[in-house]
Amino acid sequence: MQLIDGKALSQTIKEEIAQEVEQIKKNGGKVPHLAAVLIGEDPASEVYVRNKVKSCEMVGFNSTLVRRDSSTTEEELLQIVEDLNNNDDIDGFIVQLPLPKHINEEKVTLAIDPRKDVDGFHPVNFGRMAQGLPCYLPATPFGILQMLERYNIEVSGKECVVLGRSNIVGTPASILLSRKAQPGNATVTLCHSRTKDLPKHTRNADILIVSLGIPEFVTADMVKEGAVVIDVGINRVEDASRKRGYRLAGDVKFDEVAPKCSYITPVPGGVGPMTVTSLIMNTLKSSKKEVYSS
Amino acid sequence: MQLIDGKALSQTIKEEIAQEVEQIKKNGGKVPHLAAVLIGEDPASEVYVRNKVKSCEMVGFNSTLVRRDSSTTEEELLQIVEDLNNNDDIDGFIVQLPLPKHINEEKVTLAIDPRKDVDGFHPVNFGRMAQGLPCYLPATPFGILQMLERYNIEVSGKECVVLGRSNIVGTPASILLSRKAQPGNATVTLCHSRTKDLPKHTRNADILIVSLGIPEFVTADMVKEGAVVIDVGINRVEDASRKRGYRLAGDVKFDEVAPKCSYITPVPGGVGPMTVTSLIMNTLKSSKKEVYSS
Repeated sequence: MQLIDGKALSQTIKEEIAQEVEQIKKNGGKVPHLAAVLIGEDPASEVYVRNKVKSCEMVGFNSTLVRRDSSTTEEELLQIVEDLNNNDDIDGFIVQLPLPKHINEEKVTLAIDPRKDVDGFHPVNFGRMAQGLPCYLPATPFGILQMLERYNIEVSGKECVVLGRSNIVGTPASILLSRKAQPGNATVTLCHSRTKDLPKHTRNADILIVSLGIPEFVTADMVKEGAVVIDVGINRVEDASRKRGYRLAGDVKFDEVAPKCSYITPVPGGVGPMTVTSLIMNTLKSSKKEVYSS
Repeated sequence: MQLIDGKALSQTIKEEIAQEVEQIKKNGGKVPHLAAVLIGEDPASEVYVRNKVKSCEMVGFNSTLVRRDSSTTEEELLQIVEDLNNNDDIDGFIVQLPLPKHINEEKVTLAIDPRKDVDGFHPVNFGRMAQGLPCYLPATPFGILQMLERYNIEVSGKECVVLGRSNIVGTPASILLSRKAQPGNATVTLCHSRTKDLPKHTRNADILIVSLGIPEFVTADMVKEGAVVIDVGINRVEDASRKRGYRLAGDVKFDEVAPKCSYITPVPGGVGPMTVTSLIMNTLKSSKKEVYSS
């Protein structure tokens, strides 16, 4: 069994990007610039956004944090989005979700210029992804693809089972892995809450991607010997023995599943760190106009 | 075994729409208007476009056919698209594919205003479909959904296998059937040229959708007893006994597969007629501003 070390891989990729940015600066090119918008005081969101800004700085990007309290109106947020759309120095930006209840997330997502939508959530980018056109890939599936590629895990012709059909992980991951692309060309089955006999499907998987948000849902009897297991879940599980009263657990029962796997991602330190890296990669692509030429 | 009669169903839906259009006219509302653009002299395309225009007339729509010969430049076609985008009376239009080699199909598709993209090929509509937002569904998958719905075929929780991952049939059908929607909620496996042990997958299918373009590829031994089989293929097979020298065959070996099925679509007269109906339905939706409010 080999661990897919998302933390180390993320570090490697960021160092590669840092070198490229250094070169861009030497040549007097445009320094990539990512902006993040944070509305309200959700503690998890604060951590995520702080990590994103920190990662930008690590690789030499310029970064901007736009912070507003939870009383911000939808109209005010749409104006912030509009300003970022029109700011030529900003290559990409994200609006951290979830937003306060009184703001329509869909409306905000649709307002972001697709050319700056480095989260890959706008329908234009989602559609381009599904049609195999150049686009910004959503962060988590992009991170998963990077892991498979960098660990030289063969995907083509493999049986891939995805658990969970969210718009940000399961659905795009299932689409990407079945595309005629590298990595891709897998035979993908997308499973969800309505799937009957889930273990029958998971036991058939050469590559199993789990994104359900249910702690330790996948047990050893559900996994084929030699499978590659990608665990997207990050759940807090009560644990009185820890000082903070909880521990972090994935959607996979790691201790019993890991020995059966050829590769497996840990939680934390697996998929999580890769998502920020994806965002950085998308911003670099935007800055280099690799997706949209104008 | 019950035949899914696409020809009859298409007729029924068109009659329903004709009644609705009649009502709209009585009330002095806007008469839906579909335009079709045909470039060049491809005989199959001429038949398709003629059918589309004829169907429009049948249901009481206004229709416009824009015909140009194969010497039309890309620039000229883009101007036609632009004019149709700006013509307030046109609710939707299609540019019949394939286009002559010197014209970039992707560029033309992207130039169509998504609000008038009743073929559902623009990335915005494709992305909205995948994200579960209101959109124009691509004609063939939309026709398949209509068939399943109108024949009261349970999809939720079923094992659905899609053969072929084209952007116009297999990929969108696989996405649609796995969505949390009605019809939907199936466990979908998307198979293609790189899939290993295809029969293992097809034999597991409660619902099998075949869109490979390979005549009579699916044989009885590949199908589960009681399965629902949707055959999207329309292939010409040499047949000296026919006056015209060929017959039309689906991707499924109908004679031997049909007896095992609970439902099956014939070729011709199955999925084919439903695609035009989808286009008509999308145009009506556009006219009623059901997808985009402005």
